[in-house]
Amino acid sequence: MARLAPLIALLILAAPQVVAAPPPPPPPPPEASMADILAASAPSDWRMLDPENTVYMQLPSGRVIIELEPRFAPRHVANIKTLIREGYFNGLAIVRVQDDYVVQWADPDEKRSVGTAAVALKAEFDRLFERSEPFTPLPDPDTYAPSTGFADGFPAARDPATGKTWLTHCYGMVGVGRDNDADSGGGTELYAVIGHAPRQLDRNVTLVGRVVRGIELMSSLPRGTEALGFYKTAAERTPIVSVKLAADVAAADRVSLVALRTDSATFQKLIQNRRFRKDDWYKTPAGHIDVCNMPLPVRDFSAK
Amino acid sequence: MARLAPLIALLILAAPQVVAAPPPPPPPPPEASMADILAASAPSDWRMLDPENTVYMQLPSGRVIIELEPRFAPRHVANIKTLIREGYFNGLAIVRVQDDYVVQWADPDEKRSVGTAAVALKAEFDRLFERSEPFTPLPDPDTYAPSTGFADGFPAARDPATGKTWLTHCYGMVGVGRDNDADSGGGTELYAVIGHAPRQLDRNVTLVGRVVRGIELMSSLPRGTEALGFYKTAAERTPIVSVKLAADVAAADRVSLVALRTDSATFQKLIQNRRFRKDDWYKTPAGHIDVCNMPLPVRDFSAK
Repeated sequence: MARLAPLIALLILAAPQVVAAPPPPPPPPPEASMADILAASAPSDWRMLDPENTVYMQLPSGRVIIELEPRFAPRHVANIKTLIREGYFNGLAIVRVQDDYVVQWADPDEKRSVGTAAVALKAEFDRLFERSEPFTPLPDPDTYAPSTGFADGFPAARDPATGKTWLTHCYGMVGVGRDNDADSGGGTELYAVIGHAPRQLDRNVTLVGRVVRGIELMSSLPRGTEALGFYKTAAERTPIVSVKLAADVAAADRVSLVALRTDSATFQKLIQNRRFRKDDWYKTPAGHIDVCNMPLPVRDFSAK
Repeated sequence: MARLAPLIALLILAAPQVVAAPPPPPPPPPEASMADILAASAPSDWRMLDPENTVYMQLPSGRVIIELEPRFAPRHVANIKTLIREGYFNGLAIVRVQDDYVVQWADPDEKRSVGTAAVALKAEFDRLFERSEPFTPLPDPDTYAPSTGFADGFPAARDPATGKTWLTHCYGMVGVGRDNDADSGGGTELYAVIGHAPRQLDRNVTLVGRVVRGIELMSSLPRGTEALGFYKTAAERTPIVSVKLAADVAAADRVSLVALRTDSATFQKLIQNRRFRKDDWYKTPAGHIDVCNMPLPVRDFSAK
């Protein structure tokens, strides 16, 4: 009957041990757990999040931190930064929470001026990639794309036949709402994924970043009861206290986040570790991993 | 600036139109939306949920309904039904909510007797399949399994090389917590998936069913702040008012749910519809779908 204590071992996300490794990534050291691998990482395996591309969204319940990715969506990221710096998002609200799908925030009154920012921009659904740019491919097949992996710490896909690359809709990714016109979004309405990766949205929406802290403050909000998860009444909405760039926040109010470099040897070891979970709990290691199941470690450097 | 109204069209889950169809499933009628396909369905495309395998879990916020799947886990389903009928779960609690992973319920005090039920059972991670049993395969590659599709309305996988089949860890699937020993679970601790499909758990846990109503009552709960999402204090837990089988509930308190048969021609059309979303909003139809992104329609028959 002593059933709760064993729960600690149950469904455990950490502490696997690797016993086998197929090509192409190098094999991790045997017996290494995820915690071991991260503990053995070098400082050079980590990168500081750029305060110019780090967003603090203050909700009444706490702070959500988003890393923007200008390499994939330079126009939209620049426009969103203009909106942020001119105070566009302060006092807006989360207007939609659809279960197993998205949380979305916008101007519920549709009255806010975009100031010097653009209302709409040409879409940035995908782009040509350079052979020289970092991309850490996963060795397993993907349902939706010829190749998936990680670019600059973000989940991404590539099609060698077209030379195109794009970010993928994984849990926590942030995208730009738009109307039916592909070029009708500008960043005034944003959403974050809070469910199983809706990969059918890939290359249909401009993705601009990823929530690196505080996604649970959004994913645990009550679901809206109107069509598509919109809230029925204004009272149900969650107010957005403020949205600021980390670069514009006083040093005392900043957190110094570091992210594991996805082009590091440590991340390669982590991929193998996650593909082959052979520990006391796992009986049938999957031997595979999809691009939306890889942890992308982020640490609070200032907390040490 | 009139940006909110177009949100209705944004990220819309319904109303796609199909323009192309690859083998092997038959092509859907052009211009048919998901709503059209369901509206054109025949009564024989739907099956009544068996009250003997339908669970009502009453939370303070409302009712969660789970369909059990005895074909994949006969021993565990029978044991869970014994636990339910003997009142095991009444007054227990949701003890763990881990973001992008699982909600779990158990006896937090570890004192409850299992009555005539078993504490632990031999695992039912997978089983041999018969050639004659219904299985609706998806035509797209899966990262984790040689073949994925749907059996009896549940997401499942097959390996033709071994003749084995198993249920897959999609959003809303319900599984049996266990200790390190594969045969240490019995159904006294259950969890539901509330995040991106943790497919690494496939064939490592006995899956027993799927939440067909009310998953949002669990997925929107505050996340636990202890390791693995356990709640720190008893006060944070959500009490379970009662757990009953629909068969044991008075007719007036039952809902008559019907589920779309996954071996119906209508479901085949729906697969094609979800693979090729070609409507006014989608610009790049994925042309693929993974087993955890297919809607599994359930209707309240009694509401009509």
